[in-house]
Amino acid sequence: MLGAVIYAPGDVRLEDRPAPEIIKPTDAIITIAATCVCGSDLWDYRGINPVTQPTPMGHEYVGVVQEVGPDVAAIKPGQFVIGSFFASDGTCPNCRAGYPSSCVHREFVGGCQAETIRVPLADGTLVPTPEQPAEEMIPSLLALSDVMSTGWWAATAAEVRPGSAVAVVGDGAVGLCGVIAARELGAGRIIVMSRHEPRQKLALEFGATDIVTERGDDGAAVMRDMTEGVGADAVLECVGTPESMQQALRSTRPGGNVGIAGVPHGVQINGSELFYSHAGLRGGPAPARRFLPGLITRVLEGRIDPGKVFDLTLPLDQVAEAYRAMDERRAIKVLLQP
Amino acid sequence: MLGAVIYAPGDVRLEDRPAPEIIKPTDAIITIAATCVCGSDLWDYRGINPVTQPTPMGHEYVGVVQEVGPDVAAIKPGQFVIGSFFASDGTCPNCRAGYPSSCVHREFVGGCQAETIRVPLADGTLVPTPEQPAEEMIPSLLALSDVMSTGWWAATAAEVRPGSAVAVVGDGAVGLCGVIAARELGAGRIIVMSRHEPRQKLALEFGATDIVTERGDDGAAVMRDMTEGVGADAVLECVGTPESMQQALRSTRPGGNVGIAGVPHGVQINGSELFYSHAGLRGGPAPARRFLPGLITRVLEGRIDPGKVFDLTLPLDQVAEAYRAMDERRAIKVLLQP
Repeated sequence: MLGAVIYAPGDVRLEDRPAPEIIKPTDAIITIAATCVCGSDLWDYRGINPVTQPTPMGHEYVGVVQEVGPDVAAIKPGQFVIGSFFASDGTCPNCRAGYPSSCVHREFVGGCQAETIRVPLADGTLVPTPEQPAEEMIPSLLALSDVMSTGWWAATAAEVRPGSAVAVVGDGAVGLCGVIAARELGAGRIIVMSRHEPRQKLALEFGATDIVTERGDDGAAVMRDMTEGVGADAVLECVGTPESMQQALRSTRPGGNVGIAGVPHGVQINGSELFYSHAGLRGGPAPARRFLPGLITRVLEGRIDPGKVFDLTLPLDQVAEAYRAMDERRAIKVLLQP
Repeated sequence: MLGAVIYAPGDVRLEDRPAPEIIKPTDAIITIAATCVCGSDLWDYRGINPVTQPTPMGHEYVGVVQEVGPDVAAIKPGQFVIGSFFASDGTCPNCRAGYPSSCVHREFVGGCQAETIRVPLADGTLVPTPEQPAEEMIPSLLALSDVMSTGWWAATAAEVRPGSAVAVVGDGAVGLCGVIAARELGAGRIIVMSRHEPRQKLALEFGATDIVTERGDDGAAVMRDMTEGVGADAVLECVGTPESMQQALRSTRPGGNVGIAGVPHGVQINGSELFYSHAGLRGGPAPARRFLPGLITRVLEGRIDPGKVFDLTLPLDQVAEAYRAMDERRAIKVLLQP
C-alpha cells in the first residue's frame, strides 16, 4: 500500500507501507477516494513543528468502507464515507456537548495521504452519504473532512449571526471556507484580509463583500473604519501566528467574538489586552463530526461548493510536488488522487 | 471637602481637597452617602500598580445629586443615585451593544472615597432609585456600583444558564457576588474554591453548593471529578493572577466558558493551551450600567443582599484602617461612611 511519509522538513516521500488492518473491534478500513494537503501539514514541512521520526502524513479523507470490526454497527462495507480528522466515540460527555474533537477517547486519524487507512471508532467518526456521490462532488465532500468544517467552526466559534459584520484574517483554504460559512450563517458584511489576487477572487466568489489589503495596525484601523469605528462583530482567525491573533483581537468590537481556527504557534495572548478588548475568544480543533451531516446536505444540494479551494489536482505519486506547490503558494490547496 | 489620597504603597491619607465643581455641561455633583474599598484598590496599596503621584482613591459610590450641568436632562438634584465606575454616554455603538464600560467617551470615575464627587456624562452613567432608599438598603445598593455588577458580569460572560455547573475561582467580594449571580441565573451547581472559613460560610449563604479547598492542579482535578470528569460549564475568574487564570482554564469543560472579572496582572494566556481547551474566554471591566436597573430592582425587592460582603463599616476618616483591614484579610470588604 502506498502512502506519504515525511522524513525531514521539505522531504515528503511516497513509499510502500504495510496495509492497515483492523486492530480494535470498533475500527474500519477505508479505501481512499481522495485526500489532500492541509495548511497544518506545512508546519511540519517547513520545520516549524519538529520532525523527530519518519511520520505518515495527511488527515483528510473520503472513501469507501472496505471492512469493519465486529463492534461497528452503523457503518457498513461498501458505503461512501466522510470522517473527521479526530476519531470520536460519539457518546462521552464532550461528544454529547458537541465537542467530538475533544472526545475523551479521541484519536488522531493520521496517514491519510495513502491508498488505504484505518479509522478508529468508526461509528462515532464516519458519516455515510445517502448513495455513491457523483465524481464532481468528491472535492467538496473531501473538503468537509477538515477545511470546510474548520471554516464553519471558525464562524460558529465567532458566533456569526444574521446581519453580523464579519472579518476573516487569513486567505488560505480555511479562511476561504470561513467566508462560505459566514455567508451561509447570514452575515451582513464579510471583510477578508488578503493580498493575493487569486484568493481575493475566490473570496468574492464565495461571498466576501470587501477585501482589505493592509496588514497589522493599518489593517485593524481600516477594519474599524468599516465597522462604525469599533470593530467587527465576529472575527475568524484562520492563520495561527502571533501577528494574526493580534490582528484578530484588534479588529473585534467590544462584545464581539474571535473564532480561532488557525492552530496557534508561539502565540501568547496578553491577559490585560484581552480583558480591555471586551472580546470573546474560542478556538480549538474543529468539532467536524458535529457539522458533517448538515454540511454534506449543503454540498449535495449544491448550496456550497468548498471543493473550489482545490486549485490543483495531482496523482498521489506526485505528493512531493503537492507540498512544494502549497509551500511556495503556487496552489491554495492540492487534492491528491490515489 | 475630605477625600482619600494614596501617596505611596501602604500610605492612604484622608485630606482636605477642593470641592468638585461642574466642568462640563453633562456633569453632575454627588454628595456621597456611602463608598468602599475595592480589591483592585489593593493593587495600588500593595505597590503592584505603581503609585507615581498622589492619587485620589475609590470608584464605588451611592449618594444624592447636589447639582447638574445644563445639558443633563434625566438626572435631577435631590435624587438618590447609583452609578458605574466608568462614566458612559449611553449612545455610542459600544453602549448600544451593551458595553458601556467600553464607551467611546468613557471616563473613569475616580476619587470616590470622599464626601463629594463629580460624575461625568451623568445621564448615561447614573441610575436613580424610585425613592430615597431605607438606610439598611444602602450597603446592597452601594455594592451594585461595582462589586455586585462585576460578579454579575463574571457570570454573564461565563454564560451561566439554568442548570449550569458553575465554578468560582476567588473567594473575595467579587467571587462571592458571582455566587449570588450564578444562583439568580439558575445554576444547578455552584462550586467555590476557598480556604477561608468566614468566606466559605458567606458563599454557602449566597447559594454555593460545594466548597473546594484544594488549589492549582489538585483543585482543577477535584473540580473535574465533580463535573463528569470534563470540567464546569461556566467558570468565574475573580482574581486576576496567572495562577487563577490557569486554574480557571483547566477547570472548564470543552465548550464551556470562563468569565474574567479579575483585572489581569502579569497574565499571559498560552494560545495553544487555550486552543486545545475548547473553552471560551471573555472578560473586561463590568458593563455595570447595563445591569444596574435590573439589579436595583432585585435589591429593592429583597431578592439579593450583596451588602453582606461588607463585614466592616468605618467612618471615612478611618480610611487608612479600611485599607489595612482588607490588605491583611481581616475584612472581606469595608464600607466607608463620610
